[in-house]
Amino acid sequence: MAEKITPRSVDYSQWYIDIVLNAKLADYSPVKGCMVVRPRGYAIWERIQAEFDKRFKETGHQNAYFPMLIPMSFLKKEAEHVEGFAPELAVVTHGGGEELDEPLVIRPTSETIIWSKYKDWIQSWRDLPLLYNQWCSVLRWEKRTRLFLRTAEFLWQEGHTAHETEKEAVEETMKMLGVYKEVAERHLCLPVIAGRKSDAEKFAGAVATYCIEAMMQDKKALQAGTSHFLGQNFGKAFDVQFQSREGKLEYAWATSWGVSTRLIGAIIMTHSDDKGLVLPPSLAPEQAVIVPILKKDTAPAVLAYCEKVLAELKAVGVRAILDADDSQSPGWKFAQHEMNGVPLRIEIGPRDMESGKAMVARRDTGEKAPYDVAGLPATALGLLDAIQKNLYDKALAFRKENTKPVSTREELLAFYGKDKGEDAGTAGAIGGFAEGAWCGSRECEAQLKAETKVTIRCLPLDSQEGVTGSCCLCGAPARHRAVFARNY
Amino acid sequence: MAEKITPRSVDYSQWYIDIVLNAKLADYSPVKGCMVVRPRGYAIWERIQAEFDKRFKETGHQNAYFPMLIPMSFLKKEAEHVEGFAPELAVVTHGGGEELDEPLVIRPTSETIIWSKYKDWIQSWRDLPLLYNQWCSVLRWEKRTRLFLRTAEFLWQEGHTAHETEKEAVEETMKMLGVYKEVAERHLCLPVIAGRKSDAEKFAGAVATYCIEAMMQDKKALQAGTSHFLGQNFGKAFDVQFQSREGKLEYAWATSWGVSTRLIGAIIMTHSDDKGLVLPPSLAPEQAVIVPILKKDTAPAVLAYCEKVLAELKAVGVRAILDADDSQSPGWKFAQHEMNGVPLRIEIGPRDMESGKAMVARRDTGEKAPYDVAGLPATALGLLDAIQKNLYDKALAFRKENTKPVSTREELLAFYGKDKGEDAGTAGAIGGFAEGAWCGSRECEAQLKAETKVTIRCLPLDSQEGVTGSCCLCGAPARHRAVFARNY
Repeated sequence: MAEKITPRSVDYSQWYIDIVLNAKLADYSPVKGCMVVRPRGYAIWERIQAEFDKRFKETGHQNAYFPMLIPMSFLKKEAEHVEGFAPELAVVTHGGGEELDEPLVIRPTSETIIWSKYKDWIQSWRDLPLLYNQWCSVLRWEKRTRLFLRTAEFLWQEGHTAHETEKEAVEETMKMLGVYKEVAERHLCLPVIAGRKSDAEKFAGAVATYCIEAMMQDKKALQAGTSHFLGQNFGKAFDVQFQSREGKLEYAWATSWGVSTRLIGAIIMTHSDDKGLVLPPSLAPEQAVIVPILKKDTAPAVLAYCEKVLAELKAVGVRAILDADDSQSPGWKFAQHEMNGVPLRIEIGPRDMESGKAMVARRDTGEKAPYDVAGLPATALGLLDAIQKNLYDKALAFRKENTKPVSTREELLAFYGKDKGEDAGTAGAIGGFAEGAWCGSRECEAQLKAETKVTIRCLPLDSQEGVTGSCCLCGAPARHRAVFARNY
Repeated sequence: MAEKITPRSVDYSQWYIDIVLNAKLADYSPVKGCMVVRPRGYAIWERIQAEFDKRFKETGHQNAYFPMLIPMSFLKKEAEHVEGFAPELAVVTHGGGEELDEPLVIRPTSETIIWSKYKDWIQSWRDLPLLYNQWCSVLRWEKRTRLFLRTAEFLWQEGHTAHETEKEAVEETMKMLGVYKEVAERHLCLPVIAGRKSDAEKFAGAVATYCIEAMMQDKKALQAGTSHFLGQNFGKAFDVQFQSREGKLEYAWATSWGVSTRLIGAIIMTHSDDKGLVLPPSLAPEQAVIVPILKKDTAPAVLAYCEKVLAELKAVGVRAILDADDSQSPGWKFAQHEMNGVPLRIEIGPRDMESGKAMVARRDTGEKAPYDVAGLPATALGLLDAIQKNLYDKALAFRKENTKPVSTREELLAFYGKDKGEDAGTAGAIGGFAEGAWCGSRECEAQLKAETKVTIRCLPLDSQEGVTGSCCLCGAPARHRAVFARNY
């Protein structure tokens, strides 16, 4: 673990990749653009999955599994959908040694295959709602990839629901957005802005796309989850009609929503530092590591003592480990566990044993202080809670510091240092989130993007009432309040 | 749920499909050979996964995720491996609108891609063992498919481990076989024979394949899990060398092992009956259903009473539901929950409420008896245990009844009613497991298969000592004891 991490101030992108590789979260694949999720990364994903899956089930959803191969013709049934996904498809042309009659695509998302089955399963309003989710991988051919943040294949969940009424489908869309926000904030310690996407940024095939957006340490935005109200688009494309309560034939209403392994990238980019990974305690596979200070004569006694402390920590539910490896020095271990993002380090040597104290270091702040071993389980639980809270608070404060209300085009361009372009995206880059009024025009938005790479990240749900004034881009009457940013 | 199930005696294959479809466990896909795992089927899979995953972690394994796309050239690095899998590959030739330089295959199994990464991660004996597992889907192009039992895409787990020594790898192979046997017997209620495959039946690329084999109700064998000792085959194919404790360069030793959604097929075929699905209680998503007998005046009181009973059952950990739907009759509901395989049905009407009794019906035996409501939680737990045990015992007794020691070719052929061929595979078919001595000759085995479709399922681990006598097929000196059967 002697590898050095490039400091954020030198090269933010390289810093990110250094952490992913050195903390052994993921690795490159022999197939360009794909990624290997290594056990340390996958263990974080399993904890993220568990939090979401619990909430999906509590809100009445069931897991299922739909095939990864989709006939090319299915994609074409929804005009916007195929337009959005066609450039990114991986196509299977041969199977079992023979050329296929119709090419199959590896799912880039599963609306089409799922709605082709919903047609078989939905006849009456009594069959509704269908509240299904699946955990799987999807594939979208990407030219420029970055581990976790953008890869050709990635792991995700995709919820797909069918409803009797528009109202019910809209409520579902917003409910799942709420689930995403809650888990992001509570477990990933990511303060997020929940909002609606502009039409230019919405999902191909959606009536409306809602999202949660987080600010990374380089002040860029990262879309951390999306929830789509699909209207009757897929109901019509796949002819999913049902007998309503009034005895009429109606098309089913749809939603879909997803979060992916990209969230691991968001955690890294939000919380980590130049020493390595920093993890929210609730997602850390290992929450505390005991590092014994082993000296020749006292080593067996110290180890036995540490085993006892370990058992006590585990007994209160702390995911603790003991690093008893005698081939490495304590200092080397400190650096390694810092790299790996273990939230608490507990150092115990012969003198600590005598005094009944242990040195405890927090990964988030680097603070180090002696605590009574007798009270260590309670201390550890308290510190883990404090770290969880601190990571969220710190990220929220950072976002606030780097969010600026803008009223005019000049203010907005100045905020982003127009001339510096995307490569100014280091931690010290200018810019952040700009909040401003927007007229709602697609052209106005497109022009900004072309000039500055700044886009409308979302129209925050909590600030759309009573919009007045004029568009900060073109001066026309404003219809929305928008958050602008460069983004991943 | 008015659909009829074809009786086993009429058409065993159709009976199986009727259950899969009517209990809504799985459905056909628009892509031939693929399958949709519906929520009721997926919920069983989640419980199976949980049991295995817990044990994998307890035995020191970590989950990871490797890409689904593998360069075609990788498969060719291990000669037997590519020979075995080439005919079943799905090939991606286009990505992102362009033809690929090298075709990629969708993983049929992941030894090759995983060992290509192990090369990067293994330098010294200190890096070993690597004990990794992944849960994913794989794709093997199949001509003749059957839901759960044999489909082109299926869900599975694949463990892939790398070790310092042959001994350690062999131990790992046997340890995981033991895990498979334990979960199959304890949770799936499948009595299985653990054995070694003959060379003709082993995994393409393995030195030795071990398996667990179960007997279905039509007396055919079903391979329920395999554990492979891969020797240094993949270590050499991918040049995975490490510095040994003695300072020498050595190739790493490998194992791989897997179980799949096929296990759901095994559960259905082993336990179910002409009324529908029968599930081991430990895997049943719903273990008990309360069916209230609703009459006009007393309905609200009965429902309230049932809610209380429901809460009491849940409080002791019984996965209970209340079927309060007033649009269906109790009789219709009885049939539906029998179809779905709910282990216990609890009927409560106004008179039961007065007497403090409830009628409880067991799905496995059909037995029905009144029990005190006061003691219902304990009664339910006891009955669920009894069902779990009964399913295993019944399956074991069935296997024993249909297992026959054979000494000569004539005995063996008579047992399988040679002339009737595979289509005699109904529940009443002759045959079953034949136990006999075998010379070990591949020709001798191949001839039997060609003549009768009977194959050597395995060489049971517990009966290989002191083999004497002569081969029941050809009369040559025997080297093994074998179990013969027709199989899925």
